[in-house]
Amino acid sequence: MTLAASAQKMPTVLYGASYYHEYMPAERLDQDVALMKQAGLTVVRVGESTWSSWEPKDGQFEFAWMDRVIAKMHEAGIQVILGTPTYSIPPWLFRKHPEILATRIDGRRAQYGIRQNMDTSHPAYRFYSERVIRQILARYKDHPAVIGYQIDNETSNYGAAGPLVQAGFVDYLKKRFGVTQELNKVWGLAYWGQLVQDWDELPPRDGILNPGYKLEWERYQQSRVTDFLSWQARIVNEYKRKDQFVMQDFSGGVHTDINQWAIARSLDIVGTNPYYPVQDELDGHAATFTDDVARSLKMANFLVTETNAQTTGWDSKVQFPPYDGQLRMNVFSHIADGANMVAYWHWHSLHYGQETYWKGVLSHDLTPNRIYAEFSKVAAELKQHGPRLVNFQRKNDVAILYSIDSFHGIEFMPFDDKVNYMTVLRQMHKTLYGLNIGVDFVTPETPDLARYKVLLVPPLYVASDRTLTRLADYARAGGQLLLTFKSGFTNEYDTVRAELAPGPLRAAAGFHYQEFSSLKAPLALKGDPFNAGAGNQVSHWAEMVQLDTATALAVYDHPFFSRYPAITRNPFGTGAVTFEGTVLSDALQRAVVLDVLKAAGLTGPDQALPAPVRVKHGTANSGRRMHYYLNYSATPQNTTYSYGAGADVLTGRPVAAGATATLAPWDVLIVEEK
Amino acid sequence: MTLAASAQKMPTVLYGASYYHEYMPAERLDQDVALMKQAGLTVVRVGESTWSSWEPKDGQFEFAWMDRVIAKMHEAGIQVILGTPTYSIPPWLFRKHPEILATRIDGRRAQYGIRQNMDTSHPAYRFYSERVIRQILARYKDHPAVIGYQIDNETSNYGAAGPLVQAGFVDYLKKRFGVTQELNKVWGLAYWGQLVQDWDELPPRDGILNPGYKLEWERYQQSRVTDFLSWQARIVNEYKRKDQFVMQDFSGGVHTDINQWAIARSLDIVGTNPYYPVQDELDGHAATFTDDVARSLKMANFLVTETNAQTTGWDSKVQFPPYDGQLRMNVFSHIADGANMVAYWHWHSLHYGQETYWKGVLSHDLTPNRIYAEFSKVAAELKQHGPRLVNFQRKNDVAILYSIDSFHGIEFMPFDDKVNYMTVLRQMHKTLYGLNIGVDFVTPETPDLARYKVLLVPPLYVASDRTLTRLADYARAGGQLLLTFKSGFTNEYDTVRAELAPGPLRAAAGFHYQEFSSLKAPLALKGDPFNAGAGNQVSHWAEMVQLDTATALAVYDHPFFSRYPAITRNPFGTGAVTFEGTVLSDALQRAVVLDVLKAAGLTGPDQALPAPVRVKHGTANSGRRMHYYLNYSATPQNTTYSYGAGADVLTGRPVAAGATATLAPWDVLIVEEK
Amino acid sequence: MTLAASAQKMPTVLYGASYYHEYMPAERLDQDVALMKQAGLTVVRVGESTWSSWEPKDGQFEFAWMDRVIAKMHEAGIQVILGTPTYSIPPWLFRKHPEILATRIDGRRAQYGIRQNMDTSHPAYRFYSERVIRQILARYKDHPAVIGYQIDNETSNYGAAGPLVQAGFVDYLKKRFGVTQELNKVWGLAYWGQLVQDWDELPPRDGILNPGYKLEWERYQQSRVTDFLSWQARIVNEYKRKDQFVMQDFSGGVHTDINQWAIARSLDIVGTNPYYPVQDELDGHAATFTDDVARSLKMANFLVTETNAQTTGWDSKVQFPPYDGQLRMNVFSHIADGANMVAYWHWHSLHYGQETYWKGVLSHDLTPNRIYAEFSKVAAELKQHGPRLVNFQRKNDVAILYSIDSFHGIEFMPFDDKVNYMTVLRQMHKTLYGLNIGVDFVTPETPDLARYKVLLVPPLYVASDRTLTRLADYARAGGQLLLTFKSGFTNEYDTVRAELAPGPLRAAAGFHYQEFSSLKAPLALKGDPFNAGAGNQVSHWAEMVQLDTATALAVYDHPFFSRYPAITRNPFGTGAVTFEGTVLSDALQRAVVLDVLKAAGLTGPDQALPAPVRVKHGTANSGRRMHYYLNYSATPQNTTYSYGAGADVLTGRPVAAGATATLAPWDVLIVEEK
Repeated sequence: MTLAASAQKMPTVLYGASYYHEYMPAERLDQDVALMKQAGLTVVRVGESTWSSWEPKDGQFEFAWMDRVIAKMHEAGIQVILGTPTYSIPPWLFRKHPEILATRIDGRRAQYGIRQNMDTSHPAYRFYSERVIRQILARYKDHPAVIGYQIDNETSNYGAAGPLVQAGFVDYLKKRFGVTQELNKVWGLAYWGQLVQDWDELPPRDGILNPGYKLEWERYQQSRVTDFLSWQARIVNEYKRKDQFVMQDFSGGVHTDINQWAIARSLDIVGTNPYYPVQDELDGHAATFTDDVARSLKMANFLVTETNAQTTGWDSKVQFPPYDGQLRMNVFSHIADGANMVAYWHWHSLHYGQETYWKGVLSHDLTPNRIYAEFSKVAAELKQHGPRLVNFQRKNDVAILYSIDSFHGIEFMPFDDKVNYMTVLRQMHKTLYGLNIGVDFVTPETPDLARYKVLLVPPLYVASDRTLTRLADYARAGGQLLLTFKSGFTNEYDTVRAELAPGPLRAAAGFHYQEFSSLKAPLALKGDPFNAGAGNQVSHWAEMVQLDTATALAVYDHPFFSRYPAITRNPFGTGAVTFEGTVLSDALQRAVVLDVLKAAGLTGPDQALPAPVRVKHGTANSGRRMHYYLNYSATPQNTTYSYGAGADVLTGRPVAAGATATLAPWDVLIVEEK
Repeated sequence: MTLAASAQKMPTVLYGASYYHEYMPAERLDQDVALMKQAGLTVVRVGESTWSSWEPKDGQFEFAWMDRVIAKMHEAGIQVILGTPTYSIPPWLFRKHPEILATRIDGRRAQYGIRQNMDTSHPAYRFYSERVIRQILARYKDHPAVIGYQIDNETSNYGAAGPLVQAGFVDYLKKRFGVTQELNKVWGLAYWGQLVQDWDELPPRDGILNPGYKLEWERYQQSRVTDFLSWQARIVNEYKRKDQFVMQDFSGGVHTDINQWAIARSLDIVGTNPYYPVQDELDGHAATFTDDVARSLKMANFLVTETNAQTTGWDSKVQFPPYDGQLRMNVFSHIADGANMVAYWHWHSLHYGQETYWKGVLSHDLTPNRIYAEFSKVAAELKQHGPRLVNFQRKNDVAILYSIDSFHGIEFMPFDDKVNYMTVLRQMHKTLYGLNIGVDFVTPETPDLARYKVLLVPPLYVASDRTLTRLADYARAGGQLLLTFKSGFTNEYDTVRAELAPGPLRAAAGFHYQEFSSLKAPLALKGDPFNAGAGNQVSHWAEMVQLDTATALAVYDHPFFSRYPAITRNPFGTGAVTFEGTVLSDALQRAVVLDVLKAAGLTGPDQALPAPVRVKHGTANSGRRMHYYLNYSATPQNTTYSYGAGADVLTGRPVAAGATATLAPWDVLIVEEK
Repeated sequence: MTLAASAQKMPTVLYGASYYHEYMPAERLDQDVALMKQAGLTVVRVGESTWSSWEPKDGQFEFAWMDRVIAKMHEAGIQVILGTPTYSIPPWLFRKHPEILATRIDGRRAQYGIRQNMDTSHPAYRFYSERVIRQILARYKDHPAVIGYQIDNETSNYGAAGPLVQAGFVDYLKKRFGVTQELNKVWGLAYWGQLVQDWDELPPRDGILNPGYKLEWERYQQSRVTDFLSWQARIVNEYKRKDQFVMQDFSGGVHTDINQWAIARSLDIVGTNPYYPVQDELDGHAATFTDDVARSLKMANFLVTETNAQTTGWDSKVQFPPYDGQLRMNVFSHIADGANMVAYWHWHSLHYGQETYWKGVLSHDLTPNRIYAEFSKVAAELKQHGPRLVNFQRKNDVAILYSIDSFHGIEFMPFDDKVNYMTVLRQMHKTLYGLNIGVDFVTPETPDLARYKVLLVPPLYVASDRTLTRLADYARAGGQLLLTFKSGFTNEYDTVRAELAPGPLRAAAGFHYQEFSSLKAPLALKGDPFNAGAGNQVSHWAEMVQLDTATALAVYDHPFFSRYPAITRNPFGTGAVTFEGTVLSDALQRAVVLDVLKAAGLTGPDQALPAPVRVKHGTANSGRRMHYYLNYSATPQNTTYSYGAGADVLTGRPVAAGATATLAPWDVLIVEEK
């Protein structure tokens, strides 16, 4: 789509903040705009939070308060992203239609006070939402300051259940399964005598234990959000200009309650709201993880719509302002991941409400401060270098397969209270991050897996035969596939396969098993085959693998379990399948992943950098290679630059291939090759 | 009763599993029966779980699916126990009568999805239950394969409260107390101004703090279950043949929400479902504890209706398949406790539903495996030796007094979050188990206490004067009575006695007290009188005992508390009362119990066996003495056989008195005397 | 008021217990009165617990049961305090008006069974309460034994919410704010689009997150209790004689759910119910803390209406009877704090009900015991010396400012799960107690702060400009003001000030800050400036202070934070402001407080006493100085008596200035100067 493309190809990196003059205790618009100009801010995000300002009474719309904000911004050369205000309903609407608020699975209704707690499928909610959206869009669509629209905000399914949602679920099931007898079969409802003969007998979600039912419920809940946001996007699309974009801002990380990939299909560009710990805990991983997800959703550049300025928190327990330099580091880290905008939540701090301690660029005193000074410094750098840095293209050889269904399937039948699908996925990503290997996220629906040399698969507990066959084919065709325990155990209905595990993966994996065991305490791998020392430890789960064609890379050090391999490898076609039948320590995971990367020819000098230094590679706006070196530490770090000769973008100084560079604490070096 | 007797005297030990072909993902009845025959299985338990298969729609009954199962079993020579399917209601019944589900004390109604959550007193539930029971019984009562009937499954009171149950409680109280003024008196309702003048003023259970009210509520709840199961038993008795039995399967251990002794009076034979940890935690105690309860209920042989095959758990957190040999060990352990049947839950594993990870003999792949092989080995041994092993008679000299009321009384006014009535009771049982002393459970209602030489009494907090007098009489007549703290403190209404503690026990115990103290930290006994070393520690509670005629066996090592004895003994009549005024460490409990056993002349070579070896004695089917030696460890153990010359039942090898035998890891030696 | 004055000036110290003959399992009034006389008891508290005895049926009143109790007491020379029985409603009232019970914020209704759970604003409750109060007062007002009346018991707001209370809140807001637009402004309701245009749109409390709303709700809840108790006091005042008093007994400590100062204005004398740990944990602090609050409420003598006799607890987990001597110690400690009565809860122990283990002077056996003996000893001492000890006057130079609003404001936005407003306040009080410095509590409304030389201010998070200005003025006029972090951050609506922190305190404090940080781990102060050794540790929170005129007393030992002072001092006018920008260890708090006390000239020999010895000073009934020395330990302690020559009140022995005295374990020395 033209609009999407134009949205993604931007002239420079935008740098800004959300701005809510309507939240301020006194008039200060001119002051704020002056401070913004002085700092070099180029974009503000406005309007998404305040339905009751847009429409203080039912059907009475007010625009003057926003007209002047946008006008002043435009005057100051600041661009505007305008949000639809649907994530929090006004008091008059709650009074009139309290039933709009979500009824939870336990039958309790959400209370008024917090935002993001409605049933977004509710027709009354849709009616009032549509009306206010159309009013706003009609008013501002032609304003030259407005570059795009945000629909809603960090939308979730809000745990809405209740009769209306339940009825929607039955409709969803009818479409998917036709007759209840099909449900009886795939969910095994003979168990505990719960065969359903007619749709009106389907019991509600509240007391359900059946994993198949629960999985479909999760899918249905995800589809409700996709439906709501694509509905909003369609409305906005009726109004928006060709040079404007429609966007949603996902909260950080990978989600299990919404299908981000499906939603992204309705968006021109993805927005993301990464928040992360700073001070001594800043290592760049949390930001990169979220960025990698955001970039992977459309395999394109994205916007950082919100991130931490001073401190975050819904109370004052975790107030951690960044050390000097950390704010700036994070900006360049996002750009290196493909962000074309970095914006803070928010410009000011709030004097009341739940987010009093979620502090913006300005503190509550609303005057320049330490963070404002660092913001100004970054803005100046972006003003000068933004056009070279924008539209940074990543091309990664490694992907992680994310299966939202497998997350849920394992949650329904967890193997531990702390270790789960997500911890394995995060461990894999953090391992790659620590190895300075760029990575994308793919899903079972991603069409072109073959573009990756290595595919890491967290416990793929729920998967159709087709998906498993695709993975086998991927290896057969030369891919390095890293599989983990529990993969292939259930089919797409979360029903355990009635065949030798791991089912359709058996030939590719080269083994089968009939048994598995929890591990009461961690075990060592016999002989420490990966030289992991104190880290030679596996835990929680052991599949009692019987080899067919695979070879054991490691066995358990235990009187009984030693007969079962812990890690195996099976050459398959022109590729190979490496398998982890247990939960690995970080050290072992690193060793196994490194081993697989080596097999794929993906290792090099980046794995030899000093521990706190991260490097990220890509193609600059100019079409030339560009390399980011980031020092996540309070001490200077000496690094070797191992790529083609170029120049330091920020200083203009030339950098020779093989040159040694010293990175100051919390500093960044950006080299663009000649 | 003839039937009961015939049920208890069986020709051989049955060995089998529950079987639910209706749960299988595809037709495999012939395959399963062939695998069963090949393995040597002799009994299946069927039908209790699947009301919706029996009656898919209201009043429409289906039998064909079960007819063929029973027919095939019969053909294969496999016996069948048929269950009434009342523990889980079908969806159509829930839709029609949602009010059948239990309303909890907090007013919430149980949800559909889980089993065992109805108000079993509800007339609608009773109506539909009776109809389906009669249909099934009428259909199969004459089938030669059917040897008995199970009523319901692991029945509890399910926490049902709500107006209907509350009304039943008022009726119960009217019968028991006549007028509310009696309640006012025994429950002390003047306190906090809660005198009840009329029955319609009795407040509901939800907010009640009064211990007397709470205790009667517990008794009423127990009576509801007894009433429900005896009602089912009466229905079944109308149909069953003289050679058939009626049975209920209690879940493992001793129960506090049902009165197992009262229920057992309606049964021909007791079933029990012990599940226990295996791998490194298998020491036989959990199984023995449950078996001892089951045997004590009717003082007769019993059936193990369910026990673990591969793994258990409602998720995959505690998946522990047994080590080689452990499955077999457990079978012989049960037989040595008096079991005439051992059956697994279940034959297969399930591919859906809450118990996906509660694995049967077969794994999800439904083909022979390691456990199937061990099952087959045991089945072969039982085929050969079952008739010698069956109907094993225990005759124990020691009993533990179980007071369900005392458990509740202490729960209402606990003295610790972790230590309670049950922990003391379990400590006593485990101490005896570790000393290789067989034990029965008795209750305050058990008529013939004099048959035991030693009676151990966990904190008998709630007891009538009559019960306390019986205990004093027991000691006076020569019994060794081991009493513990809090005994005699309240009467049968949980009302504290207004006299010097321990009330009617004072003369027999030989002391009184006016005060007691919690112990902030454990204390030592002065001078380590039991040579317990590091285990010389008491804790949590100290009764500030003032001696009348008793002597102190131990006093506290403390500036203030040293004036009060911790353990006392009082010769009384021809017996004695030993008293523990505080919570003893395991080491001290062992020392005190051993001391009491010695006084009763019950010690001997069994206390000198190697630590992991357990021995169990009884009378074989032949009338001769039989001895089981079980090695609960992964290392071979040398034991001395200290009883009359006989032969190893399993190998036929002779065993001389005083012979040394080596027990292989997780192995058993069964000697029948000549 | 005459009555109040007479109530506070008493002829001797009363010593007694609550007495509920109606709770006893059998008739024993004569026995009890005989035991009381024998022990020397002089006062009983009766009647407040038993509405259903006063009025067993709706409108049917019974007095005979109490007539004889009061008559017997009078005969025995024992005085009586009579309570209104409104804290627990009878069953017939619950049946008739279940809606009287409090509906909680979450919509659940309180259940019948516990006391103190009604909506005390409910008109039905008020109607029946008034009727029974008037009946009782009319009956006994002229009885010579009755010296005063207690209204209700340990009254709270009981968390009552629900439609009626919510409607009352709207009325409260209307009075306070006039129009919703004012709320919109001070609470910032534009945030999340929650502007309220009309009062009927105000959302109920249940889901509210807005701190300003929550603070007003707390104030409204406090006002409901003040209103209820002043209403009861007005009724009682219609009946009571001039020589009788009206009193309420506050539960121990300082309260956050009621405004004790406001309530005390309706009372003639304050009652307080301190309960505290004894045995090894008795150090006198808990008792003194509660006493200091009670005395401060009206700056006058008070009554200890309940305190522990044997043991306390609503179960048997914390049963700790006092060691020998501890009961007596506590009596004299209370008198030294200004108590004119010490009475136990209760005379007897209960045989049923929730407080079975809250044991009185007598145990359940109701015969004399160890505690009865100690009671008798104390009673004899009081009989002899009471007239010299009564009406003890304290005059303290140090005060702690208690801000109930600040407690709530910080609770809404806590900076830690364990450290909070109360822990800082308690640390300050305990520090002074350990230093033997007497202290009063004041509030922001206390008129004459200048009477104190030192004012300690726990985090004054919520405060009006006026309050902050008063504090600045206090220092300017010569006061030593000890301020803490978070002070001045929000205004009286809990709205953060839009100016440089600490707002109106800036000039007096001599610094400002824009940032603050949580501390992930404790930090040391650079160079250990207070010689605190292992205690040189601050934690949780650091205000990033920038000095204006103040000097730094300590800075953080940290690469980043070292640029910010942790503790500062600013001379201001003729006084000074010392400031703690972080949470101090106990050792540092002691050092800083001692430093401030020195600056005020308040230190002397009392800080050099042996660690377990506490001293309390005041003016005796005679007008002469009197000094209490209390040994809180199990070992004898040698102390030096540093005040004017006098005599030991209890023994009559002379005590010279500078004399050395040896205090026996858990013993007291009372010296009255000549």
